[in-house]
Formats: sequence, C-alpha cells, structure tokens
Amino acid sequence: MRLAYITGSHPNPSHFTVLVRGIPWSQDHSYSKSVESFFSTYYPDTYVDHQMIYRPSTVHKLKKDAKKMYRILRPVETEYVRGDKPCYLCGGTAHTFKLLQNGEDSIRSQTSIDELHPTQIEKECPAAFVFFKNRYAAVVAAQVLQSSNPMLWVTQLAPEPHDVYWSNLGIPYKQVWVRKIVVLLIALAFVFVFLFPVTLVQGLTQPQVLIHWFPQIKEVLKLKFLNRLVTGYLPSVILILFLYTVPPIMMLLSRIEGNVSRSDRKKSACIKILYFTIWNVFFVNVLSGSFINQMSIFSQIKELPMMLAKQVPTQATFFTTYVLSSGWASLAFELLQLFALICNILRRFILRSKKEPTNIALTFPHHTEIPRLLLFGLLGFTLSILAPIILPFLLVYFFLAFLVYRNQILHVYVTKYESAGQFWPIVHNATIFSLVLTQVIAVAVLAMKKSPMASGCTIPLIIISLLFNEYCRKRFSQVFKRNPAQRWIDETSNGGRKKGYIIGCDQNTAS
Amino acid sequence: MRLAYITGSHPNPSHFTVLVRGIPWSQDHSYSKSVESFFSTYYPDTYVDHQMIYRPSTVHKLKKDAKKMYRILRPVETEYVRGDKPCYLCGGTAHTFKLLQNGEDSIRSQTSIDELHPTQIEKECPAAFVFFKNRYAAVVAAQVLQSSNPMLWVTQLAPEPHDVYWSNLGIPYKQVWVRKIVVLLIALAFVFVFLFPVTLVQGLTQPQVLIHWFPQIKEVLKLKFLNRLVTGYLPSVILILFLYTVPPIMMLLSRIEGNVSRSDRKKSACIKILYFTIWNVFFVNVLSGSFINQMSIFSQIKELPMMLAKQVPTQATFFTTYVLSSGWASLAFELLQLFALICNILRRFILRSKKEPTNIALTFPHHTEIPRLLLFGLLGFTLSILAPIILPFLLVYFFLAFLVYRNQILHVYVTKYESAGQFWPIVHNATIFSLVLTQVIAVAVLAMKKSPMASGCTIPLIIISLLFNEYCRKRFSQVFKRNPAQRWIDETSNGGRKKGYIIGCDQNTAS
Repeated sequence: MRLAYITGSHPNPSHFTVLVRGIPWSQDHSYSKSVESFFSTYYPDTYVDHQMIYRPSTVHKLKKDAKKMYRILRPVETEYVRGDKPCYLCGGTAHTFKLLQNGEDSIRSQTSIDELHPTQIEKECPAAFVFFKNRYAAVVAAQVLQSSNPMLWVTQLAPEPHDVYWSNLGIPYKQVWVRKIVVLLIALAFVFVFLFPVTLVQGLTQPQVLIHWFPQIKEVLKLKFLNRLVTGYLPSVILILFLYTVPPIMMLLSRIEGNVSRSDRKKSACIKILYFTIWNVFFVNVLSGSFINQMSIFSQIKELPMMLAKQVPTQATFFTTYVLSSGWASLAFELLQLFALICNILRRFILRSKKEPTNIALTFPHHTEIPRLLLFGLLGFTLSILAPIILPFLLVYFFLAFLVYRNQILHVYVTKYESAGQFWPIVHNATIFSLVLTQVIAVAVLAMKKSPMASGCTIPLIIISLLFNEYCRKRFSQVFKRNPAQRWIDETSNGGRKKGYIIGCDQNTAS
Repeated sequence: MRLAYITGSHPNPSHFTVLVRGIPWSQDHSYSKSVESFFSTYYPDTYVDHQMIYRPSTVHKLKKDAKKMYRILRPVETEYVRGDKPCYLCGGTAHTFKLLQNGEDSIRSQTSIDELHPTQIEKECPAAFVFFKNRYAAVVAAQVLQSSNPMLWVTQLAPEPHDVYWSNLGIPYKQVWVRKIVVLLIALAFVFVFLFPVTLVQGLTQPQVLIHWFPQIKEVLKLKFLNRLVTGYLPSVILILFLYTVPPIMMLLSRIEGNVSRSDRKKSACIKILYFTIWNVFFVNVLSGSFINQMSIFSQIKELPMMLAKQVPTQATFFTTYVLSSGWASLAFELLQLFALICNILRRFILRSKKEPTNIALTFPHHTEIPRLLLFGLLGFTLSILAPIILPFLLVYFFLAFLVYRNQILHVYVTKYESAGQFWPIVHNATIFSLVLTQVIAVAVLAMKKSPMASGCTIPLIIISLLFNEYCRKRFSQVFKRNPAQRWIDETSNGGRKKGYIIGCDQNTAS
C-alpha cells in the first residue's frame, strides 16, 4: 500500500529533492559554493539547483518577533478602533496599545533587512536542499554513500515542504548521534523512574499526611464525602495528570534528538510513548505494582513468563475497567475535542476576539493515539487466553474507534504532509510482540496446569511467529527505509518544484 | 587504510561488476533476457554486458568428474609409463589403470558438450554478473534498492573472480535468510552443547570405565606409565582433537549459509569460531568449568561480574599455561606447517608422485588465526588487573606472532583475493568487548574490596569506552558496508575487465 501510494501520488517537490547535511567547511568558499561544485561534479546531468539553510541572525529574530507581536495585537487594535467596547475583565476603555497603522510594511521599510545579504554568508548552515531533474536521480543520490567519511555529505530524500522541521536543520550532523544517545538515556530513565514521583505525590494526598502539612484542613476532611474524594479519587487524578505530561515531554525529547522532519519527530515520540505505555500500564500493573521492585524483574528474567501467567488473570478486572474508562472515554473526548473547545471559549469570551482563527487547524496526534490502540491490542492478545471477558469490550472499542477516527481524519484534522505509512512498522512490531508474549504466557500457563504436552506444542507456535516476523522484515521493511529505484525511471521533469522549499526556507529562516 | 587500499589498488574486474541475485522468473523469456532488458532500461548509459550463472547439468557433472579423474590418474600413469617402478605398498608392477592417451581432448571431442546450448537455457540460475562502464555506475547500482520487492533484483558489488564461491551462486535468494537463521541456530546449539559430548568421551577414558568395556586391557593398565598416560593425557588429547573439528564444521555451516564469496564465508566462520572460543575457552573455564550448569549463568546475569571477579584470578595460572602451550606452540606449528608437511610426505613416499603439486598453494587461515589472537587479547585485558604476570608471556607471544605471521604472509601463503580489511570490524568489536569486560570486572573487584569510591569512578570509564565504540561505528563502519561513491567518479573505462568472470564462470559451472 505504501508503494502504491508513493507511485500513485502526484509528483511532489520532495520527490525531486535531497536533503544534504554535514557539508564540509572550506576556508576558500562558502557552503553554497561547496554544494554546487560537489553536485555538479558527481551529478552533472541531473543536478538542477540547491537551496541553503540559513541560521537565524539576531536581526531576523527581531523582525520575526515584531511580526509576531503585530499579528497578536492587530485584532485587538482593530476591535478597539471599531467599537471602543469596554474590556471584559477590567471594564476600562483606554487605548493601551498604540500601534503604527501600516504595521509590517513600516517595520520592513525602516530596517531593510532584505539587503543584509553579506552577513548571511556567515550564517549559512552546513545543510542544503538539492534539487534534481528527475525522481530517479534524487532516489539514487539519497541512497548512495557519498563520501569516504560517512559523517560528511550525508544525503536523504527531503521531507515534504510542510513536513520539514526547520529549526533542527541547523544542527551539525556530527552532533546527531550524541543527541540520540543522550535522549535515549533520558527517555529510558524517564520510563523507569516515572512512577516514583507519582507515588510520592499520591502519598501526599493521604489524609494523615495532608493534615500533618496543613493542620487547618482537618475540619474539612471530617466531611465523609470530601474525605472519600481526597483518598479515593485524588490519587488517580494525579496519576492521570502526570500521564498527560508524557506526550509533550516525549515530543520535546524527540525534538532535541535532531529529527529533520515533523513526521520523524512524531514517529520517534510515538515509539517512546509506546514503550512507556506498555511498561507503565501493562507490566507495572501486572507485576503487582510494586514500583520499588520493578527493576528486580530483570534479574529474574527466567521466571517472568510464570509471573505473568500468575498475575495477568488477577488483573483482568482492572484492565476491563481500563478499557471502559480510558478507551471509551478517550473516544468521547476525541469527538468533543475538549481542549480545542476550551481554547476557543477562552479566546472568545476572555480575550473577546471575534475573528475566526486561521492557524488552529489540528493535525492528527499519531504519537498519542497509536500507542493507545496498540496497548489495547496487547491487552486483547494477552488476556484472550486467560480472561476472554475483556474481548467484547475491546471489540466495541475498536469498532467505535474505527468510526470515530475515520470521521475525525476525514472531517476534522488537516493533513499537512504525508509520511506514506511510516508508522506501520511500529504497529507491526508491537503486534508481533503482543502475539509472542501471549504465546509465552500460554506456554507458562499450560506448564502451570501440569500439561507439559500442550505446553510443548505451543513452542513451535512461537517459532513460527518469529519466523513470520523475520520474513516480513526481509520482505517489506526495506521499502520503509529506502525508496525503490525501479518505480520512477519514467519521470523526467522537475518543473520548478523546488519552489516549496525556497518559500519555506525564507519563511522559516528565523524559526 | 581500507579506503586508501581501495583507491590505490589497480582497477580490478570486481570494481566494475555487480552481482545481481533474485532475478524474477518470466514465462516469455529467459533470465538472461530479463537481465538485459532490466539493466538497459535503468542504466542505459553505463550498462555494458552481463554473464549468467549456470547450474551444472548432469552432462557437465560427468565431464567434470572425468576431468578430475584424469588429473588424479595422469601422474601415476606417466610414472608407470616412464619407469615401471614397483608399487611402494604392494610391490606389484601391473598397469592397473589403462587410460586413453589423449585424455581431456578425447572426452571433449566425443561428447561435444559445448554445443549443448539449448539445454543451458533451462539450467540458468536467477543470478548474474552485470558489467558496467565505470566504477561509479557499479557502486551506484550496488547500493540502490532496485525493486519494490526487496527479494528481487538484489544487487551487491561482485567479489573478485578468485573470491567468488561459485556453487553458492545458484542458491535462490529467497532461501538465504532461512538458511542464515537455521545456521545461526545450529551454530548456537553447537557452541553451547559442544562440551557435553567431549566430557562424555573424556569420561570413557577413565580406567574404571575402560576396564568395564574392555576387560582384556586390565593388565595393560596396571603399568603405571600407561595408566598415567590414559588418565592424565588422553582426556586433553580428546579435547584438542574435538577442538580441531571446530573450524571445518564452522566453515561447513558458513557454506550452507549461502555466502557468495570465499572471503564472506571465511568471515562468517571467523565470527562463529570467535564466539565459540571466547565462550568455551574463556567463560567455561573461568566459571569453574561446571559444564552442566553453564546455562544457568543467564538467569543470574546480575551476579556475573562478581563471579568473574572471583573466578578470573583463580584461573590465572591455567591461562598463563594456555598462552605458553597453545599460543607459543601454535606459532611453532605455523612455521613448521605440520599438516602440509605430512601431506607432502604421504604424497611422495606413499603415493610416490614426483611431480611438484601445482594447486597446493595455501591461503592464510584467517578464520582460525584471528579468533586465537583475539582470545589472547581478551586474556591479556581481563587478567591485566588481577594477575598481570600473564602480560610478559603475552608480550613475547605477540612479538613472535608478528614476526611469524609477517613471514608466513609474505613468503608462504598465496593471496588469491583481497577483502580489503573486511576482518577489521571483527577485531575492533572483540577488542572493545574485552575492554568493557575488563572494566566491568574492575568495578566488581573494587566493590568486593570495599572501596565503593574507586568502583564508582570506574563506571564513567565504561561509558566512555561505549561512546568511543559508538563513535567508531558511526564514523567508520559504513565504509565496510558500502563503498563511497566520491572516490571513483574519474574512472571511466572498463576495458574488457569482465573477462575474469566469464572465464571463471566457464571453469566453475560444474563446481
């Protein structure tokens, strides 16, 4: 399906463009000259042009800030000019902000930044977009190891113009691997120590502790209803609030990693959140939630299947409730778009803005929804043999999810860029993992029930699952990493498709 | 150094040639036609020609057998014709073998196999050598993913003509991954259960067991000298004899894997033997040699450093002896070339052949020598902090080894093909492993000596080692996998360099 999409889609600027990083520094000439001489030497027939990436200079930053302020203040100003309505909050009518009437133009005319070209040479980043005559040449240039130093002249097919994460393009390629390792370590630490602060804060909501810290609320807690609320409800609210911080933190980590496209950043965050969810929701709950001892399971990896076989059935009720509460509720929230709704109410009634917002278009949050779906898949697989009562709930969930997400993707979210199924390998791997885990648990359960014959017969199933995975890896995974050259030999014209990147680059220099 | 070698070396047929496997089957035309149409479509400017691989037909096999027999019997025949000397063994002079005088030519003229072309079409393998005009085009064609099905049109730079392992070229590419997995499992099983049969056979050499099986040798064993020989010496002889079977078995496994070149086969065997040696010589000896319990260490992976820290010093004497006996002795054997010497004696005095053998030229046995060297490196690293007495012996060994191997490589062994440092990553990885293992043992030792401060200070050392390894991987390992394109843009002419493969293919069709 990915290949059919790529072949069937209209020629896109990204198909003809290669992103090159790690351009070596030369004393004699600029990066731009280096790129030109390199590609006109090695790709003389197909090289068309290139567009350097510029690091934002201080003047650019000032200009950008000015523009931003202008855009924020303009609606307020026009409103005040039009009607002189009183402020919603304070009731005053004074024109607090006096703005120049000709806005952006005045800023531009005063500074004439566009003529500051000589300084730009110093601000060039060692990265560029290189445009080729045809898709085939771009695919070849993206796949071939260019230089004998693999840290120089690193090429890859460029992401779509809207997909480019401009501010990360300036990161020197040499740093990227260090960043990746550091982020990996931070993410691992985050996954494993996440529950310590949470349990600590939850402990603080115990009535005794609360009274110890704030003696004045002793009287309040004597009310039975409030006491129940604090002891029964507050801890789980705190856990959920902490859980809501995970996606932004993982997104931040993926940004620090130095991904050059938004889709890569989302994919990287998606993988991190998936690991986080599977570990902190599934394993920690199953392994009796003794958070302090969660590390000790690594030293007893041999007994893990047995422990899972014992513990999974006991947690079946909890997981069924989890599917009902977290799963079904999340679909309702998805339909309501509560966050956007609140933002809108705030904007309309507190900020009293009447203009329809233009840049509120939402993109689908793959990085939060895919891990959730895969977690439910894992629950369905592992519980199916021990507590199949969860399956009807999951079936209803998946059916509703299909309708809801289909509606949302078709009518609500805006598709700015296409990653052409780059998330599929994550789904595939997680599903295989769930399947194998289920089979391992089945072996352990059957061994526990003293039927070694049935237990032994399940082992070939595991081997077949792993072989199937290996086959899929050999047969399909390459296509997600490298674009096959065979498809695009007939495409020849570029037709000014580099425009998207040049406009993007100009707009985003200062981002 | 690898790059310098590749760039500096004379243009070789392999530099202009790409080996393509997994050619899709078509009902309309032969594989040869498919190759021609594919490459003249996608590489119209640089494609020169191709050479199909043929599966040996029955007639070819007969021809080959006839040739082989002729080659074996010819010297005998000429000798008998010349002098009618008596046979060395039986003393008779009868001309047992009557051969046609015109040998090879008669076989060829009678069968006229060379005109059997129509049947060859059915015997084509889905693999071919494709020749390009310049090195750059070959490098590009080898690196680009050709087809949307990664199992079809799989390209790689061709090995050198002498390096090609012809009989493996016919293996369908789809089988290769299954073969790799099967071989990996067999090799793993071999590494882990190797010592069970050996201990079993060693047990059989105990006098009681021997007497139980062969009561007649009871009297013989009463001799003190023979008894000592049987109980003290025989077990280690059996172990060494079993150890000598390891390289051929690993080579066989690597052949079954489906490697298309001799150097790949050797490399694969080298890795397997390295794992075998490190596991069965180092770990099994250190972990007190309780062979039955060797699997249990995986369940106690956390205590492994502690166990190593306790056990390594106790085995220091054994390893020092091992360096002396196995290391120094192996160098002496290497110089003597005992095996070749015995073969030569057999040939001369038993078979009474006087002609100098032509095809006895030895190639350097990388797959046995590199693991040995790396094992001694591991011993040096790990024992250096606990029993540094081993170091002078190792120093002498490495100094002698330098002289001996230098002499052997320069004057004894024949270099038929160059893999341009393909073994270096193995050496690098094994050395980093030794280094990190040493540091882990150091941490455990310092923790045991109750100096947590010093123990903690060693941990950053491990991190730095791993980071260094990661840097090397990023910076250099790519060059061992893909040839950089930048180097060969100026090479243009092919100049009939395909000849090597065509001759090779003709000679080796039936191998």
